[in-house]
Amino acid sequence: MQSPAPLPAPPARISVIVWNEFRHERTRPEVAAIYPDGIHATIAAALAELPGLGPGARALDICTATLDEPEQGLSEERLAGCDVLVWWGHRAHAEIEDAVVDRLQRHVLAGMGLIVLHSGHFSRLFRRLMGTHCSLQWRVAGERERLWVVEPAHPIAAGLDDCIELAQEEMYGERFDIPAPDSTVFISWFEGGEVFRSGCCWQRGHGRIFYFRPGHETFPTYHHPQIRRVLTNAVQWAAPNSARRPDRCPKVEPRERLHTPKD
Amino acid sequence: MQSPAPLPAPPARISVIVWNEFRHERTRPEVAAIYPDGIHATIAAALAELPGLGPGARALDICTATLDEPEQGLSEERLAGCDVLVWWGHRAHAEIEDAVVDRLQRHVLAGMGLIVLHSGHFSRLFRRLMGTHCSLQWRVAGERERLWVVEPAHPIAAGLDDCIELAQEEMYGERFDIPAPDSTVFISWFEGGEVFRSGCCWQRGHGRIFYFRPGHETFPTYHHPQIRRVLTNAVQWAAPNSARRPDRCPKVEPRERLHTPKD
Amino acid sequence: MQSPAPLPAPPARISVIVWNEFRHERTRPEVAAIYPDGIHATIAAALAELPGLGPGARALDICTATLDEPEQGLSEERLAGCDVLVWWGHRAHAEIEDAVVDRLQRHVLAGMGLIVLHSGHFSRLFRRLMGTHCSLQWRVAGERERLWVVEPAHPIAAGLDDCIELAQEEMYGERFDIPAPDSTVFISWFEGGEVFRSGCCWQRGHGRIFYFRPGHETFPTYHHPQIRRVLTNAVQWAAPNSARRPDRCPKVEPRERLHTPKD
Amino acid sequence: MQSPAPLPAPPARISVIVWNEFRHERTRPEVAAIYPDGIHATIAAALAELPGLGPGARALDICTATLDEPEQGLSEERLAGCDVLVWWGHRAHAEIEDAVVDRLQRHVLAGMGLIVLHSGHFSRLFRRLMGTHCSLQWRVAGERERLWVVEPAHPIAAGLDDCIELAQEEMYGERFDIPAPDSTVFISWFEGGEVFRSGCCWQRGHGRIFYFRPGHETFPTYHHPQIRRVLTNAVQWAAPNSARRPDRCPKVEPRERLHTPKD
Repeated sequence: MQSPAPLPAPPARISVIVWNEFRHERTRPEVAAIYPDGIHATIAAALAELPGLGPGARALDICTATLDEPEQGLSEERLAGCDVLVWWGHRAHAEIEDAVVDRLQRHVLAGMGLIVLHSGHFSRLFRRLMGTHCSLQWRVAGERERLWVVEPAHPIAAGLDDCIELAQEEMYGERFDIPAPDSTVFISWFEGGEVFRSGCCWQRGHGRIFYFRPGHETFPTYHHPQIRRVLTNAVQWAAPNSARRPDRCPKVEPRERLHTPKD
Repeated sequence: MQSPAPLPAPPARISVIVWNEFRHERTRPEVAAIYPDGIHATIAAALAELPGLGPGARALDICTATLDEPEQGLSEERLAGCDVLVWWGHRAHAEIEDAVVDRLQRHVLAGMGLIVLHSGHFSRLFRRLMGTHCSLQWRVAGERERLWVVEPAHPIAAGLDDCIELAQEEMYGERFDIPAPDSTVFISWFEGGEVFRSGCCWQRGHGRIFYFRPGHETFPTYHHPQIRRVLTNAVQWAAPNSARRPDRCPKVEPRERLHTPKD
Repeated sequence: MQSPAPLPAPPARISVIVWNEFRHERTRPEVAAIYPDGIHATIAAALAELPGLGPGARALDICTATLDEPEQGLSEERLAGCDVLVWWGHRAHAEIEDAVVDRLQRHVLAGMGLIVLHSGHFSRLFRRLMGTHCSLQWRVAGERERLWVVEPAHPIAAGLDDCIELAQEEMYGERFDIPAPDSTVFISWFEGGEVFRSGCCWQRGHGRIFYFRPGHETFPTYHHPQIRRVLTNAVQWAAPNSARRPDRCPKVEPRERLHTPKD
Repeated sequence: MQSPAPLPAPPARISVIVWNEFRHERTRPEVAAIYPDGIHATIAAALAELPGLGPGARALDICTATLDEPEQGLSEERLAGCDVLVWWGHRAHAEIEDAVVDRLQRHVLAGMGLIVLHSGHFSRLFRRLMGTHCSLQWRVAGERERLWVVEPAHPIAAGLDDCIELAQEEMYGERFDIPAPDSTVFISWFEGGEVFRSGCCWQRGHGRIFYFRPGHETFPTYHHPQIRRVLTNAVQWAAPNSARRPDRCPKVEPRERLHTPKD
């Protein structure tokens, strides 16, 4: 009887980078009023304040990164130690460099979890990973949104009510041009007449990806307690369950026969 | 080089049974006013009137069946010749006999297409095939519904606009307790604040199943042109693409080795 | 801003019942030689011996149950406190009483995890939850099996090699008549020429279901270290992530309008 | 009651381009012996010889294209009139120009069907559409392969036996680094001990994609009758079911409120 394979040590804590474009907050007072230190700071605080969600939760090591830092905040060194990347971007998608997109894609496929927020649907990284346009319909009218929980037993929905209500949000409407999600956790209703698949999960390579719709910069969405819970749940869900093995992904090599019929 | 397998002759035409409980129409004048000959007659007429949708469409042979006919309208003889069964039921689910549910399940698994309409979500047959409660939330308030097309390239969405609007319908809301659909073609928006996965596809055994939400008996939903197109599309989609082979399903038998390593 | 919803306390430990038909072991010496105290005892020992797989793992409370106990070992009281049920059955599927099948299905839909082993594919419970025949092809020839890991980042594959090799097993071959799994974690290769989807995940209601193919009673499969690891991983994965809410499932009730357009 | 939407005329015939790298056949005599006019010519002949598979099949207009033609055989004009593109490539993946990959991706997302054969798993186009490495394990040993039909009611499996046996093929083994397919139609068994998901379907944008594993250039795979049937089935399945609407995809624009609550 063979002995068990040596278990790759799963990380005892989850290392999270909250990345933000951080432009709106520095140029538009109405955004700065809601997120004075940037959306990234608010999200990082949300992750820090929530106790682990039960005995199965791991503790978090949280840091932030922004577009205007060296290497756009996303150097190889930072990503090598990152278990989950949270991404908020909007008007500067085109500024992200090819080398950074390549690097991010490689890390996701090697096991880094990725949480893409709101207008990040149009980021180069998300479109690269999806392979589709990721287009949608939209309207900024400060209207009511309800996020209905469609998969209540999904880890990302743990501890939530049947729906999350936001008094004012930007509208995103179908058709959302994405590959059919592996799981659809939330579907949004908008006062103005549209629906949207607002919480979508995909596995790509060794990495787990979660897209979460709400979070327009002019509304206080990331201060909402249930939205903050979703973010915490999503980080726990997206973290790799064993040590990442970046070497395994791109290997395409000839193989010896395992089974040799006798002759 | 082996010769090609004899191709089971696919049916040149599609044989459809539109089954209806046919109770409301005979006892409630407001329903009879909308569906004087029964919902089944209106649906059968819809299927008959629409020309095939392009060169790939097959012609239909359409008949109807109702609960109060002998063997509840669903004898072995009728089902043996049926390619697609359309099902509308509501208040008499419990009256369907065990033998009929067993027979229907067997035929679906052997390749008969099944289109379950509206309150049919709670039929014994649908619950049997899904394995779940199939529960949902509801409200009769004659409110506006919009069915958004989420998979525009799906055959069931052929020829539709971006959404179908119904001025008055019953509301069905999430959470709809179903297995995650293989494809979700429509998601509904309701004026009162809910969403619903309104057009859902599943493969079970050799049979294709489509659940389509709209169709409360007090509203003229099945007279709506785009709803009628969905029904026609769904029949074409659900029809088996080769002759049914009912013998293949339940066979569990010992097998000789295909590959014998030499020794 | 509304305050966060009261979080249902997730169970600090996972309560597991390993259920076994326990007939072969008492009547066939060659089976008793491999599993002297029954397959259930060997599996319970496997779950007990493995330390949690990293910081995210919860401790287990393990007990066993067998067919010939009162209420077939599966009373309402026992199931009410059960987080995950492991099921091994073979020749006595037909003996399981209607009331027990109903009760088990209800508990799975309310959130109890279910791990169905080997010939349990033909149990009344599994067929009930799948809605299909669950038929397959088989051969007992004591041949080599390899279980290839198709989703290496799935929690059930944590800590495994690229494939698990079993020197002698019963063959199960496609077509396996199941609904397309939500995730296919393992695909088996058999020396005699067949393949099989050997590790399949489904969500049904609030419950997670895992089918795991190996485990014929005449082979020492449940003594194999990597098979034992799969069982431990599967229990952690299938456990509900929040307290079960059995009341939520079957509720179908009228609902007030959430959103009332002003008029 | 609104009148039905004008139905976009679905194409009466399916226009197919069989694209081939066409290098091996011109430089290696052992390949030329099997495919004297190129793999594309053999596949085109296979599509031409097979009568439509029953009344639902559309007639085909077939042409071929190769890498060394102007614009690599894939000009905007040719693609604009193409319903389904069949792709065989191997050693020249890196030669495909950025503009061609961009163009192909755009056409697939707008509705052009795509059938990727064998070593095309590593083409720039397929990797672009999948978002993953698309890596796998391989071995050229001229060994026996069996393609088991896992979804016998899928249109691509119409008319096939339970499995297709190839006496000699290259081995491709898991893990195949792809997004979980929407449907897995075939799983391969290899004499040497591996398995592979050999027939995989995905929807991306408005386009249907089918990956089909067999077809190493040194074996007569595309002369095999059942392999030829799979190709014909796949073309019928991948063809768009309504006229393509390339304008719909990338549109992201502000939208007026559909539903205006009165006030």
